[in-house]
Amino acid sequence: MRTLSGVQSSGKLHIGNYFGAIRQFVQLQEEGEAYYFIANLHALTTVRDAKLALELTREAALAYLALGVDPKKAVLFRQSDVREVLELNWILGTVVPHAHLERAHSYKDKVAKGISPDFGLFAYPVLMAADILLYSTDFVPVGKDQIQHVEFARDWAVKFNTEYVKGYDPADPDGKERGHAPGILKLPQARIQEATQTVPGVDGKKMSKSYGNTIEMFGDEKEIKKRIMSIKTDSTPVEAPKPVPEGKPADPSLVSEVPLYDLLKLMLPASEFAEVDASWRAGGKGYGDYKKKLLEAFHTTFGPARQRYAELAGDPAELERILQDGAQRARQEASVLMDKVRRAVGIP
Amino acid sequence: MRTLSGVQSSGKLHIGNYFGAIRQFVQLQEEGEAYYFIANLHALTTVRDAKLALELTREAALAYLALGVDPKKAVLFRQSDVREVLELNWILGTVVPHAHLERAHSYKDKVAKGISPDFGLFAYPVLMAADILLYSTDFVPVGKDQIQHVEFARDWAVKFNTEYVKGYDPADPDGKERGHAPGILKLPQARIQEATQTVPGVDGKKMSKSYGNTIEMFGDEKEIKKRIMSIKTDSTPVEAPKPVPEGKPADPSLVSEVPLYDLLKLMLPASEFAEVDASWRAGGKGYGDYKKKLLEAFHTTFGPARQRYAELAGDPAELERILQDGAQRARQEASVLMDKVRRAVGIP
Repeated sequence: MRTLSGVQSSGKLHIGNYFGAIRQFVQLQEEGEAYYFIANLHALTTVRDAKLALELTREAALAYLALGVDPKKAVLFRQSDVREVLELNWILGTVVPHAHLERAHSYKDKVAKGISPDFGLFAYPVLMAADILLYSTDFVPVGKDQIQHVEFARDWAVKFNTEYVKGYDPADPDGKERGHAPGILKLPQARIQEATQTVPGVDGKKMSKSYGNTIEMFGDEKEIKKRIMSIKTDSTPVEAPKPVPEGKPADPSLVSEVPLYDLLKLMLPASEFAEVDASWRAGGKGYGDYKKKLLEAFHTTFGPARQRYAELAGDPAELERILQDGAQRARQEASVLMDKVRRAVGIP
Repeated sequence: MRTLSGVQSSGKLHIGNYFGAIRQFVQLQEEGEAYYFIANLHALTTVRDAKLALELTREAALAYLALGVDPKKAVLFRQSDVREVLELNWILGTVVPHAHLERAHSYKDKVAKGISPDFGLFAYPVLMAADILLYSTDFVPVGKDQIQHVEFARDWAVKFNTEYVKGYDPADPDGKERGHAPGILKLPQARIQEATQTVPGVDGKKMSKSYGNTIEMFGDEKEIKKRIMSIKTDSTPVEAPKPVPEGKPADPSLVSEVPLYDLLKLMLPASEFAEVDASWRAGGKGYGDYKKKLLEAFHTTFGPARQRYAELAGDPAELERILQDGAQRARQEASVLMDKVRRAVGIP
């Protein structure tokens, strides 16, 4: 059983990335083969600065390792180190219906916002499918908003197999049930991460680089303190009970009406949070106290990872060795598949 | 001065390909560095059969050589043998405005015909631009209907350079005039082939594989005879003068109202054609006589090439050696450029 997940190196990683995705991904290395890659080719659709691109790629690799990816268990690599993915990207693209891409959420969202999209954004899901299919992935852990990408990869794998594999039957894609020919491209399954959470940013909107409301995981200590201290609160006096979020916020742009409360809930162990919750409802403490509590929780949660990160960052040669090793293992898989693909379509 | 031209290996080559393009391309090897490639990655957008794809790729290479491409002078290679092109294809695509591709003739034509296009067709011009730019091409010989492709390649090269090259000025793209930084991607120029001709097929429409009205260059002798004998004529009797085409045909689907006359004009040397023209206008000969004349002209024109083709086809190892040698030379160029491109965008 092989799981694959990628993180796009297009911004500093923040706690929203962690609770929303990375935490779950990292656990998967215990359950089977795990492939983790840094999607630095995808990142080119938004990062247009070489120095920054290299830095973000490096930081994403450091983050994976600091957060617990074990290169002895998992295959960790940079997307761009396996050139085969761009070959599959083209070949797969020739069987992708153009209309599918017009339906892609990521593209539609940008167009709806009046952004004039580049081709890279439009072509994004094809490369993502190539990433998944190149390594004959069984499972892709995704949040609900990303299921479409895995569905596309499945649809296009079926299209490719149907077009190019003699005796293939889409109703029997592995050839196990009724003895049809197995496909060359394996159909991946989305593994929906129920545990993932939408993390509020300091302003109560979804935590996102593009809203500038993030708390970085590996950022400067002072900056993190400043960010946590800037979490939006109301003017409830110290002695009074504090408002508790109830149901969905009325304002649709918000994911939390009381981000401080929700962040404490996210970061504290259940027993500790129970105490905080009781005092929050009773009153007698100011928001400043709770912010300090959250800062402590941040350092409890991320302190060890931050230390590992700093250590690894001091040994670039070791990081490069890990990534090269991962790339080599990934390329081995990729080249076996691409031989089959080339033979199927008639590329010498 | 470097010229590049490609031929898509998506069908049997016919005399329309020759007079419309190949004849002019082959001459260019005498005027500077010539890069000729067989666009077998592009061909995947229409050819969905491995055996056929390999066969058409091989036939296109044989045709180039038989028609006079000299591998000592020119670099002849298969597109798929230089994997760097798919890397540039992705990177370039990230700066391509989506709207440009919606304006692409090849795509619009298909959509206008009600064909539901695949992504590969839509993405076609990006790969074409990557082909041109990867080899720092100076000139691309094109028919008038293909100027847009070279304009796209220029526009996107400027976009890439502007985005990624410090000190680049699109108004001074080589940095020669006013000392700006030269671009990484060289701006190609379209070289319009005035001499190219739209060749009528046996039914008077433009000769094209998709109309099934072609006369193949390297096809079976009997089949060629049958095709020439099937050229559409009217019922003018033997003794009467034959109709001569005048101006544009009234029927817009036709490029010639009298394809037999126009094909004779194309294939015969001027002095011989003058005789044919005189007798055509005077009357006294039947269409069958003129068809025989055309068949003779076909063999005079293509006989030597057909013989070379047959010889080369008998030596697959030599053909492969030529293509491998071409690929190696092309890859050398490509890898120098891609190093610069990767450095510019921040790919390790």
